[in-house]
Amino acid sequence: MVIVMQEGASEAQIQHVIDRLVAHGFNVHRSTGESHTVLGAVGVHRDFDHRDFELLDGVREVMRITQPFKLASRQFRPEGTIVDLGHGVKIGGPEVVVAAGPCSVESREQIFCVAECVAKAGAKILRGGAFKPRTSPYAFQGMGEPGLKLMREAADQFRLSTVSEVMDPSQIQMMLPYVDMFQVGARNMQNYYLLRALGEIRKPVLLKRGLSATMEELLLSAEYILSGGNYNVVLCERGIRTFETYTRNTFDLAAIPVIKKLSHLPIIGDPSHATGRRDKVPPMARAAVAAGADGLIIEVHNDPDRALSDGAQSLEPSTFTQLMAELRIIAPAIGRRVA
Amino acid sequence: MVIVMQEGASEAQIQHVIDRLVAHGFNVHRSTGESHTVLGAVGVHRDFDHRDFELLDGVREVMRITQPFKLASRQFRPEGTIVDLGHGVKIGGPEVVVAAGPCSVESREQIFCVAECVAKAGAKILRGGAFKPRTSPYAFQGMGEPGLKLMREAADQFRLSTVSEVMDPSQIQMMLPYVDMFQVGARNMQNYYLLRALGEIRKPVLLKRGLSATMEELLLSAEYILSGGNYNVVLCERGIRTFETYTRNTFDLAAIPVIKKLSHLPIIGDPSHATGRRDKVPPMARAAVAAGADGLIIEVHNDPDRALSDGAQSLEPSTFTQLMAELRIIAPAIGRRVA
Amino acid sequence: MVIVMQEGASEAQIQHVIDRLVAHGFNVHRSTGESHTVLGAVGVHRDFDHRDFELLDGVREVMRITQPFKLASRQFRPEGTIVDLGHGVKIGGPEVVVAAGPCSVESREQIFCVAECVAKAGAKILRGGAFKPRTSPYAFQGMGEPGLKLMREAADQFRLSTVSEVMDPSQIQMMLPYVDMFQVGARNMQNYYLLRALGEIRKPVLLKRGLSATMEELLLSAEYILSGGNYNVVLCERGIRTFETYTRNTFDLAAIPVIKKLSHLPIIGDPSHATGRRDKVPPMARAAVAAGADGLIIEVHNDPDRALSDGAQSLEPSTFTQLMAELRIIAPAIGRRVA
Amino acid sequence: MVIVMQEGASEAQIQHVIDRLVAHGFNVHRSTGESHTVLGAVGVHRDFDHRDFELLDGVREVMRITQPFKLASRQFRPEGTIVDLGHGVKIGGPEVVVAAGPCSVESREQIFCVAECVAKAGAKILRGGAFKPRTSPYAFQGMGEPGLKLMREAADQFRLSTVSEVMDPSQIQMMLPYVDMFQVGARNMQNYYLLRALGEIRKPVLLKRGLSATMEELLLSAEYILSGGNYNVVLCERGIRTFETYTRNTFDLAAIPVIKKLSHLPIIGDPSHATGRRDKVPPMARAAVAAGADGLIIEVHNDPDRALSDGAQSLEPSTFTQLMAELRIIAPAIGRRVA
Repeated sequence: MVIVMQEGASEAQIQHVIDRLVAHGFNVHRSTGESHTVLGAVGVHRDFDHRDFELLDGVREVMRITQPFKLASRQFRPEGTIVDLGHGVKIGGPEVVVAAGPCSVESREQIFCVAECVAKAGAKILRGGAFKPRTSPYAFQGMGEPGLKLMREAADQFRLSTVSEVMDPSQIQMMLPYVDMFQVGARNMQNYYLLRALGEIRKPVLLKRGLSATMEELLLSAEYILSGGNYNVVLCERGIRTFETYTRNTFDLAAIPVIKKLSHLPIIGDPSHATGRRDKVPPMARAAVAAGADGLIIEVHNDPDRALSDGAQSLEPSTFTQLMAELRIIAPAIGRRVA
Repeated sequence: MVIVMQEGASEAQIQHVIDRLVAHGFNVHRSTGESHTVLGAVGVHRDFDHRDFELLDGVREVMRITQPFKLASRQFRPEGTIVDLGHGVKIGGPEVVVAAGPCSVESREQIFCVAECVAKAGAKILRGGAFKPRTSPYAFQGMGEPGLKLMREAADQFRLSTVSEVMDPSQIQMMLPYVDMFQVGARNMQNYYLLRALGEIRKPVLLKRGLSATMEELLLSAEYILSGGNYNVVLCERGIRTFETYTRNTFDLAAIPVIKKLSHLPIIGDPSHATGRRDKVPPMARAAVAAGADGLIIEVHNDPDRALSDGAQSLEPSTFTQLMAELRIIAPAIGRRVA
Repeated sequence: MVIVMQEGASEAQIQHVIDRLVAHGFNVHRSTGESHTVLGAVGVHRDFDHRDFELLDGVREVMRITQPFKLASRQFRPEGTIVDLGHGVKIGGPEVVVAAGPCSVESREQIFCVAECVAKAGAKILRGGAFKPRTSPYAFQGMGEPGLKLMREAADQFRLSTVSEVMDPSQIQMMLPYVDMFQVGARNMQNYYLLRALGEIRKPVLLKRGLSATMEELLLSAEYILSGGNYNVVLCERGIRTFETYTRNTFDLAAIPVIKKLSHLPIIGDPSHATGRRDKVPPMARAAVAAGADGLIIEVHNDPDRALSDGAQSLEPSTFTQLMAELRIIAPAIGRRVA
Repeated sequence: MVIVMQEGASEAQIQHVIDRLVAHGFNVHRSTGESHTVLGAVGVHRDFDHRDFELLDGVREVMRITQPFKLASRQFRPEGTIVDLGHGVKIGGPEVVVAAGPCSVESREQIFCVAECVAKAGAKILRGGAFKPRTSPYAFQGMGEPGLKLMREAADQFRLSTVSEVMDPSQIQMMLPYVDMFQVGARNMQNYYLLRALGEIRKPVLLKRGLSATMEELLLSAEYILSGGNYNVVLCERGIRTFETYTRNTFDLAAIPVIKKLSHLPIIGDPSHATGRRDKVPPMARAAVAAGADGLIIEVHNDPDRALSDGAQSLEPSTFTQLMAELRIIAPAIGRRVA
C-alpha cells in the first residue's frame, strides 16, 4: 500500500499514519519530496480496506499495491489454462470453440433440430437453458430437469458437449449427469453461496461477467471458485450496462485482451446477450474472435419467431452457418482456427 | 403495444405485422399518417418480448404500453403501504424511521455499545450483518448465527427492531427469531430463488437496489416477493455504479420521488453504501430526507478505525447523534418528523 | 508518481524504469518489499502521462501523486472563495443564493412576469437563455441580443442580478453589459477556446459540469479560467449521464461535499436539468440545499405549457414560492439561510 | 407521437389531452383497450418536447414516432454515402481506409518519418494534431499552423490525404489548404457554432462521437453539418465513458452495425482513443474491421516513449505494419479489402 500525504501535512499527522501502519503489521518506507511525503507500506494483507487510511488527517490518497486476486492472476499460471470439457473439447487452446443452442430447451423436436444444425456448422458445445432467471416473475421459467435430459440426449446424438445455467447450490448434484460445464449467469456473478458450492466440484464452470461488474470483480468471483479447488473456470464477456440503449448492453470487447493479460483463465464472448438483437450478433461475434476470444456462446433457434424466450436475439440456423464460415476466415489472422 | 412502421413501409409489410399480432391474440387498431403508419395492439400480455416485432421488415419501433409490474404499482394500492415491524415501528407513515448499527456484528461489547447509542439518538431499528457478501473470498465473512443472537439481545435491551441480511433461502428459518426485517443485499436483488422464498413468509423484507438495476427492475424484483403473497416490502436506494469514482457509488436520490410515484411501497436511503466514506454520510443522509425518503439505514460503529468491515463508511456515535438533530430540523419542511 | 513493479520483476526491468525516471528529471526512492518493489518518483511534473510508464516491462501499476489542478484546489485558498455578483449578491457565503427564471427569454411580458414572481419569492439572480445549445438543428435557438436586453431590463426593475449562457468567445464583449455572470453550459465544459476567453475577463463565470465529466475534469476546466486570472468561478452540478432513464440525468449530489473538500470554489445545484421533469425539481432542490449547496439555479416559467423550450422542467411560479418556503426551513439545519 | 393513458384515466383527462394535441396541430386517433386508452397524434413536428405531455394528468407514457434526424437517416439515402477525399481516397466504399499518424505533429523529422512508414504499410490518410484539446491547461497544446504545414508537405511527398482537428470556427479558413478532412473531436461534438461553420464549407468532416453521446445524438450533430449543405460527413466511434476503468474508454463497437442501419453516413473506428493503451490497439482495430467499420484512425509514432502527447496509445511503426497485414486477412470475411 502507498499513502500520499497532502501538501503541507504536519509531521504529527505523518507520524500518526506511520504508527497506524506499523500497528497493522506493515513495514513502512518514507520518502519526503519537495511537495509531498509518500509512505510505502510493505507486507501482504490481501483483505485490507485502504479507505480506512484515506480518512486520516493529512492523507491525500491511498493506493493498494497487492492485486486482490491471486489464484486467478496470470502470474499464478503464466502459461495459461486450458479447460477440458471432455470429448476433445478444449477451451483456451489454439481452437476457437463455439457453443450454440437455444436460450431455453422447449421440446425434443426443437433441441434435436438445433443440435443437429449447430453440430453440422461446427459448434462443439450445445447450450440450452432449463432454469431461467427472468426479470419478470410472470415470464417462462424453463422446463427444469426434463429439459436437461433432452439436451443431454441431443448432445450425445450429435457428439456435442453441454453447458446450462445453474441458479442455486441445490441444483448442482441433480445437474451433474446432464452438463459438461455449469454456467453462472450475470445476475449470479456475486452469489457467493453458489460460487463456493461450484468450487467444491471439479466440473468446468462458465462464469459470466455481471452487468455492472468490473473486470477485477469478475476475477474476484472466479477466485471464489478457484479457492475451493476447482480450477476449471472459463470467463465470459456478455456486455455491460451503460447509458447507450440502442443495444441491450454494451459489448466490452476490450475486456478480452485485458483479462488475457491479467489472468490465465480462458475468456469467451456472448454476442447474443451483449446486443440483444439477432441482426447485430454476427458482426459482434466476428469482432470477438478478431479481438482474441477463446470461444463464443451464441443463441440459435430453429424457429426464432416462436421461441419461448430471447427469440429476438437467436440466429436462424442458416445465419449461424454463414457466420461460422466468416469466423474460419478471421481466426487465422491471429493464429487461431475454427472447426 | 404500439408499433411504428418505417416511412415507406409496404402494405404487405404492414399486413404481415398485423397478422402476427392477431396470431398472438392482440386486437389491432391501425392509424395511417402522412409519414408513418402506427399499429396499436390492445390486450394484456405481461410477458411479451416486444423485440420480436422490432425485427420484422418495415418496423421502425415497438413500444410496450403495459407496465411490467402490477402488484408493486401505485395504481394497485393508491394510498401507499405502511410496513409494520412491530414495537410500533412503521415505515411509510409520517415518521422518518432510522435504522443504524455496525456493518458486521463483531462482539457483545460492540453491538450493545452501538445499540445503546443509536437508540438514545433516536434510531428505531438496529442493523448488523452476520452473513457478509464480500467481493473477496479472503475477507471477513461474518459471525453467523451467534452474531444474530447478540444483535437480538442488544435490540431487545434497548427496545429496537432488527434488520439483517439474508444471503440464501436455507438461512430464512434459522433467522426468523432474530430479525424483524430481512435484508436482501444489492448483489442479490435478482437472486430469484431467494426472492421467491421470501415471498412465502410474512415478515418484512428490505430490498436493496442493485448496483446497475433500473428502478423498473427494482420494482420487478419486489414483484417476485409480492406475487408470493408477502406485501411487507421496503425498497432501498443505496447508490448505483457510474463512471464517477470519487464516491464508492452514485447516490441516485431522484429514485425516491420517482419510485413514490410509480409504486405504493416505502423507500429508504442508505448513504453509507452510496458514498462509502464516513465524511460524506451526513450530507447525503440529510439530502435523502429532504428528497422524501421514508427512512434511512446508516452504519454506526463505536470504534470505526477497528471495524472488521466497512469502518471507513461507519459514523462515530457522536456524529450520528449530531446528524439526527439535523434531520429533526429538515423533516418538517415536508411534513414529516424524526423521533 | 509511484510505480509498483510486478511480482518477480527482474532487476534489469527495475533499473530500466529508474533510468527512465531520472531521465525525466525525477528523484527516485526505491523500496523493496517481500512481494513488490515500489519506486517513488519525486518532483512535480503537472502534465505527465503516467501511462507511458505503465507500458514498460515489469511494471504493474503507476499512480500519480500530484493533483492535476492547482489554482482550483482547496489548499490554494483554504478559507474558500466568495464570488460577488454585485448588488450584494455573494455566492459561497452563509446565504444560499437562488437563481431562477425561464429556460429561454421569449418576450418582454414573459421575462418581466417571471422576474417579478421569482424576486418576490426570494430569488436573487434572474436566469434566462438567449443563445440555446439545442441537440436538434431544427429547435428554437434563442432570441439573441434582444433577449439579453429584455432580461437586463427586467432584472434591473426587480433588483436581480443576471446569468445567461455564452456559447462562443465572439459573444463575450456583446454580452458584458447584460450579464452579471456568464454561464458555460455542460456541452461546452471542455470548449477550451471559450474557457480561455473567459479567463481574460473578470466577470463571474458559472461553469456547469459536463454530462460525463468527472469532478476532477470539472476542476481542470475551472483551472483553465483561473489560470487566465479570473478567480470568480462558480461550479454547478447539473446531473450526469448514467444507465437510468426515468430521470433525464442522474443528479450526483455527492459532488457537492466532495468538491467542497477538493476546491475552494462555490458550487450550486441545477435540479431542473438534473431531473428534466417539473414534479421532481422541488425534492431535488431541497436535497441539494440539505447536501450543502451554496445555491440553486431553477427554471421557472409563467406558462410552462407554452414555453418555447424546457417547459416540462419549468416550475409554475406558485410551486417555486412554496419551494423557497421549504428551503428556508432546511437551510438552518446546516447553519445556512435563504433570503 | 403516441400517448398512453394510465389505467383508469378519466374521460375528462383523455379529452384534455386530445384538445391539447389538436391545439398543437396534430390529427388524433384514439383507440380504447380493456386496460389502456392510447392516443396516436399524427403530423410531423420534428422539434416537439414530448415531456410536455408526460406531465398532463392521466398520462402514463408518451412516445415520439418521428425520428429526430432526417438528412442523416438511411431512408434519406438508402444506397449509402461515399465520402471522397480526393487522390482516390474514398470512405464508405468496398475498401477499408486507414488513417494513421502521430497524436501531435512535433517536428519535420517526426512527421516525415511517420508518414513514410504508414504510407508503406498501406495507410491512405495521414493524421496529425496541430491544435490539441487538452484536459489540463498546463499540457502541450500543439504546434499550430506550422505543424499543419509540415503535415501537408509530408502527406504530399508520400501521396497521403490529411486529417487534423479543428477546435474553433476561426481556424477553418486558415486550415483549408492543409487538410483534406476536418476532424471534430469528441469534446466538441456538441459545439454547435463549430458544426454550423463546417456545414458552410464542402470539405469532408470527420465527426467523433462524444464520450457520453448516444448514437442518436451523434446523428443529430451530423444533422447540423448536413443541414448546412455539407454532405461529406464521416462518423467515428472512439469509445464511451462507462464505469470500467481498465481501459481509458469502452469501445462501443456495436455502434458500427447500428449506425450503418440508421444512417447512410460512413463510420470508422478509433481504437487508440477507445483503449488508451498501445497493447490494446491491435485487437480492437481488428475487431472494428470485423464488425464492419469503413475505416480506422490509428495513432502511430516513430518514438512513442518520447511523444509529446498520447505516446502511451501510439503504435510503433513495426506493430502498425503487422496490424495492417492482419486486417488484410480479416476484411475479406465481410467482402471488404484493405490496401
